[in-house]
Amino acid sequence: MVKFKGYEFVDGGVCAAAGFAAGGIIAGIKEGNTTKRDLAMIFCAERCRTAALYTTNKVKGAPITVTKKHLEDGYAQAIIVNSGNANTCNSNGIEIANKMCALTAQALDIDENDVIVASTGVIGQKLNIKPIKQRIPTLAKSLSPKKSGEAMEAIMTTDTRKKELAVEFEIEGRKCHVGGISKGSGMIHPNMATMLAFITTDVAITGELLEKALRKVNDRTYSMVSVDGDTSTNDTLILMSSGLAKNPEINCEDKNYELFENALYAVMMNFARETARDGEGATRLLECIVNGAPDEKTAKSAAKSVVCSSLVKAAMFAADANWGRILCALGYAEGDFDVSKVSVELASEKGKITVCSGGFGTDFSEEAASEILSEGEIKILIDLHSGEGSAIAWGCDLTYDYVKINAEYRS
Amino acid sequence: MVKFKGYEFVDGGVCAAAGFAAGGIIAGIKEGNTTKRDLAMIFCAERCRTAALYTTNKVKGAPITVTKKHLEDGYAQAIIVNSGNANTCNSNGIEIANKMCALTAQALDIDENDVIVASTGVIGQKLNIKPIKQRIPTLAKSLSPKKSGEAMEAIMTTDTRKKELAVEFEIEGRKCHVGGISKGSGMIHPNMATMLAFITTDVAITGELLEKALRKVNDRTYSMVSVDGDTSTNDTLILMSSGLAKNPEINCEDKNYELFENALYAVMMNFARETARDGEGATRLLECIVNGAPDEKTAKSAAKSVVCSSLVKAAMFAADANWGRILCALGYAEGDFDVSKVSVELASEKGKITVCSGGFGTDFSEEAASEILSEGEIKILIDLHSGEGSAIAWGCDLTYDYVKINAEYRS
Repeated sequence: MVKFKGYEFVDGGVCAAAGFAAGGIIAGIKEGNTTKRDLAMIFCAERCRTAALYTTNKVKGAPITVTKKHLEDGYAQAIIVNSGNANTCNSNGIEIANKMCALTAQALDIDENDVIVASTGVIGQKLNIKPIKQRIPTLAKSLSPKKSGEAMEAIMTTDTRKKELAVEFEIEGRKCHVGGISKGSGMIHPNMATMLAFITTDVAITGELLEKALRKVNDRTYSMVSVDGDTSTNDTLILMSSGLAKNPEINCEDKNYELFENALYAVMMNFARETARDGEGATRLLECIVNGAPDEKTAKSAAKSVVCSSLVKAAMFAADANWGRILCALGYAEGDFDVSKVSVELASEKGKITVCSGGFGTDFSEEAASEILSEGEIKILIDLHSGEGSAIAWGCDLTYDYVKINAEYRS
Repeated sequence: MVKFKGYEFVDGGVCAAAGFAAGGIIAGIKEGNTTKRDLAMIFCAERCRTAALYTTNKVKGAPITVTKKHLEDGYAQAIIVNSGNANTCNSNGIEIANKMCALTAQALDIDENDVIVASTGVIGQKLNIKPIKQRIPTLAKSLSPKKSGEAMEAIMTTDTRKKELAVEFEIEGRKCHVGGISKGSGMIHPNMATMLAFITTDVAITGELLEKALRKVNDRTYSMVSVDGDTSTNDTLILMSSGLAKNPEINCEDKNYELFENALYAVMMNFARETARDGEGATRLLECIVNGAPDEKTAKSAAKSVVCSSLVKAAMFAADANWGRILCALGYAEGDFDVSKVSVELASEKGKITVCSGGFGTDFSEEAASEILSEGEIKILIDLHSGEGSAIAWGCDLTYDYVKINAEYRS
């Protein structure tokens, strides 16, 4: 976990912020599932100002269409999510997504337009409403501020790591929180929003600034992650604010806004890193840091190009300092820079080594490089020496297990 | 091999066209190599009008810089190529590439500005001129119109299939030829030109039309292939014309030009297919045919998006008709089309099955689909029902062996 000064990591996940409760239950969405939680609910005592970002894929899950409609007024009070089926490309998709909202609203005694719905799993198989209908009342009764972990388990698919975290910080002497749960392991190449992530806060803030902060932080976190280059159809990122921290409402981009935005960055940046680390089949987290780019856009493109390259990813799996593949990936990134100025370092807890300087290879020790690359967390540090732009992107290595997982996912 | 009426496949490869001779030799470019040919030469009795396309990667191999300079006048007479080392990102790259041309020119008694040089292999390791210098005279003496196969062997790296072919056809009663050799298996995502391909013809044609035909056919062939999304630093596509077929010189886009362009398509389209089929670790060739797109650009983007998707590729490896991943990949292609009109069929020699219609899944038999997908050549037929644009792209499945090959390539 990357730590930030002034922000303390605390328990509670999506329920760390005042007013929120959650729960997760085994509904049996996928035929034969009797052991894994697959239906989650998140609820707030208050109606919440809510900002959202969705996938840019033209093929969108039915739940996104319904959620967008329900968020037209900028408010929500509950979230219902299932894993095991994406409810996407199905002729009855919208109908099912609407039913999920109606059943949740009924069980919680709230307006169905205040319910957010999301689904994740296989695309193109009809989602059976029966097990959902049957279990929603029990799930609603079970909600508790201590059950963020259950909700998180229920949204996991091929994820192997639990992505749940929260930070505590102060605004004008009031204790504030930002926390959440996040899932994603394959079909990860977010473009705007990403995967499923539900983030809550008790900070009082206007709807406009809530959305602004979400967009800005997303651009530097989830949008900089790639596992396999496939932008999902169901990516949904939700940020709900209960306002129950009772801070003076943030209504301009002052230092309080900055405190909030940094808290959001602390949460989302760590989720982004954990998502890359948990990439399907991954054995190593790759963090590519680009400095000295002519502008931020070029830095972003360069950093993403490196973590997206199948050949760089396969070399990292083998702990092979094949830096020529890194140069190749930089070479097809967007933007102009002088290749003859580029330097590349590889680093991990075991040390740091310069493998390329002025666009040419250095006379480095392959043994030392291999030792550095044998770690679980690898930094690829690139300086383009062409300006002030910088960016970080996260990815993972390409392994036999990625192929195995995805050649067998449906069965 | 895809056949075309009026064009007969003949032996001879890069030497099928009148005037050309070739050869390949073991030079020991990679330390310890004593068994694989790794230095090739192609020579024409006449100076040839020559067109070329190169990688769009900003990181370019030194041989490309030298070849571009030598082709400024539009003419060449010989090609020298090595495998085992890309001569890219090396401080002495240009110097070595120039030396290769000078040595070749000396051995063949021609002008060094008429020599094309290319290299393929590992990036960022210095290329030793010694073994090349030592072997060039012997190689030059060994050249023969019957040795296209030796030249082809010498340019192979991780390739497992021989990519050598030629067609014979008639223009105004004169026998004409287009043929060549081509290599490429990994780092294949051509963008403009691609990999290494050396194509020769004896058709008499102006330099302007030679280049026009090369560009046009490349856009529909090599530029529509992807193995792993990595655009190489050394892609070079050369087309040399000896003019020795003695046809009336083609100087406008008449029916003779069309005959020539179609011959070029027959050769390059089959090279493109074979390159995808021979993708690193591949067990299946994927051919994605998109029809009914609003325009050709959208059709191309859609077709490439499908063959580039890691998840589609992994599903194909498993012979799994996971069509939701195909829809997902279409969804993040460029261009606008109505997802609710899309239909998808899967086909092979075993038959054809509709898996998606009107944007939704059909009630198809998984067993029948799996049977169809068990073949070595799979067609993914997509109709966007939104216009007249169409395109074909080629790719391959993603397998354990792709990871294996690329986690071990340098060692």
